[in-house]
Amino acid sequence: MVTIQPLSLDLKSKLQQKIDAKTKPLGSLGMLERVALKIGLIQNSLTPKLEQPTIIIFAGDHGIAREGVSPYPQAITYQMVLNFLTGGAAINVFCRQNGLAIKVVDAGVNHEFEPHPDLIEAKIGQETGNYLHEPAMTAAQCQTALNKGAEIIADLHQSGCNIVGFGDMGISNTSSAAILMSLLIGIPLERCVGRGTGLDEGGLQKKTYILKQAVQNRAIDPLPMTVLETFGGFEIAMMCGAMLKAAELDIILLVDGFISTTAMLVTSKLNKEVLDYAIFAHQSNERGHQQLLNYLEAEPLLKLNMRLGQGSGAALAYPLVQSAISFLNEMASFESIEVSNRK
Amino acid sequence: MVTIQPLSLDLKSKLQQKIDAKTKPLGSLGMLERVALKIGLIQNSLTPKLEQPTIIIFAGDHGIAREGVSPYPQAITYQMVLNFLTGGAAINVFCRQNGLAIKVVDAGVNHEFEPHPDLIEAKIGQETGNYLHEPAMTAAQCQTALNKGAEIIADLHQSGCNIVGFGDMGISNTSSAAILMSLLIGIPLERCVGRGTGLDEGGLQKKTYILKQAVQNRAIDPLPMTVLETFGGFEIAMMCGAMLKAAELDIILLVDGFISTTAMLVTSKLNKEVLDYAIFAHQSNERGHQQLLNYLEAEPLLKLNMRLGQGSGAALAYPLVQSAISFLNEMASFESIEVSNRK
Repeated sequence: MVTIQPLSLDLKSKLQQKIDAKTKPLGSLGMLERVALKIGLIQNSLTPKLEQPTIIIFAGDHGIAREGVSPYPQAITYQMVLNFLTGGAAINVFCRQNGLAIKVVDAGVNHEFEPHPDLIEAKIGQETGNYLHEPAMTAAQCQTALNKGAEIIADLHQSGCNIVGFGDMGISNTSSAAILMSLLIGIPLERCVGRGTGLDEGGLQKKTYILKQAVQNRAIDPLPMTVLETFGGFEIAMMCGAMLKAAELDIILLVDGFISTTAMLVTSKLNKEVLDYAIFAHQSNERGHQQLLNYLEAEPLLKLNMRLGQGSGAALAYPLVQSAISFLNEMASFESIEVSNRK
Repeated sequence: MVTIQPLSLDLKSKLQQKIDAKTKPLGSLGMLERVALKIGLIQNSLTPKLEQPTIIIFAGDHGIAREGVSPYPQAITYQMVLNFLTGGAAINVFCRQNGLAIKVVDAGVNHEFEPHPDLIEAKIGQETGNYLHEPAMTAAQCQTALNKGAEIIADLHQSGCNIVGFGDMGISNTSSAAILMSLLIGIPLERCVGRGTGLDEGGLQKKTYILKQAVQNRAIDPLPMTVLETFGGFEIAMMCGAMLKAAELDIILLVDGFISTTAMLVTSKLNKEVLDYAIFAHQSNERGHQQLLNYLEAEPLLKLNMRLGQGSGAALAYPLVQSAISFLNEMASFESIEVSNRK
């Protein structure tokens, strides 16, 4: 298991002093001040910098998809991966605009892809087991997914990247996330299951019924690794390994929506220090997300009523993270120019 | 008075079709979809564009400042104007980062400024009258402020700008805004008065007491122009004239925080069509702002717990507005590539 250093707090008061000396009322930049402080601590620097920001989209297929828990067919997963690689998806547009690189990881998509410079081949299987009838993956598969996630981050770190947005693609992965959340937080499944990409009321009831059945069929201890193996997705498990490694390497983790936050929940159960490295980008429209964020004591930068995944919330929040760094590094202080402070 | 055309809705269904044909679940880009639709309608185009985005900071001083309603001295107003002009304030940092131009308007600051390329001289007076004892301005001054605001926008439009963020600077202007809001919406002053740049509980009580006294001293009919003359600021009145003209010229109005939203409230009472041209950028921490936004049925893009003014919320929200335009213009549609739609 990786070792994540708890943040050194030596720098904390110096960073706060620097923030408070800026020519603005105390605290008036709100959440941006907290982001600046957090990144300063992660980088152990009064002048932090963002280098080669990258969105990684972890894609995987889910056996549970054949139970009709999504209004979209499983083929969407691979088709959207191709869309990411040809640059036509929402995440491509947002990344181009905001200067972010994209990597797409085939963690286990039911399709054979041609090689592509932005595609990372890390397929664990064609799809997870249908957990209505069998565990989603074996313990060995889960460990391989964690290891591959770590390798992907280690490579990215080598190339100079110090901030990663975690995105997902996988038809039916809100089902997996809902069960993970329910078991790891210990709240009823009904409060975790949502409409995903757009189920109607009947679809939501069916999804809830099937997932309850699945949880009953596989009576397990709610230990993080067991839960992840039994009900996880390959993309979610790989994201967990990536998140652990990223924190170990002092990389800023930009957590996207419901799937990405669920991966962060699992990861934090494996090593709670990872939360010190996380910035939450977006609160999605998915039912369980608000509760999950509350549980993690996370306050996301954006609430745009989106429910898209792909890292879209992370890509859209990135300019705000940049703004937090920019004000810390570039704003004038009361000492540097003639501006009166409070009476 | 200017004439603002109600938006033609001929294009509305075509824009919605274009949005719905994008390779994403229906409605999954949430607020960005509404922004894209609105801007398409404002520009009467299926392929809208943002040109020469500009933040205008309207600055003015307030006679009421001498009653101690702010923890900061009046001199801050002119000192911050100088800070804006030398590039050291938060708004400068955010505008540089996001590619926005800045113009600073001296609508009535208690200081004589040297000429500067980014400073627009439009001084109505050194400061407004102290409305505890006299009206803030005369009817003629108020009309001049409206006219100058319109001229400023007309010039900017000439130079090709089609989106303006409305910012403010003025010590004690949350006092003015609270009274305007209270009288024009018809709700008690206590619910509109907030801590501004950072009053403590005692300061808040004093501010509320003084403002109640002021409203009692000047018994007026709550007509928008009368309220604006009696309790407004030069910068607020000028912003109103600018907003009216901007809507008339099909310019997108990016409304910032409490002051800017109050100016939008006054403006909408003069001509309600102006709201069709407004995008609300940020919900500030100031007490009355949430209610004011509710009253205007406005849902802001950001809620970052900031309370800075200067157009900072508008500058930070600008990349999201760009993203709304970018997805509309650049994303692939279901027709253009092979991605399955709903079952």
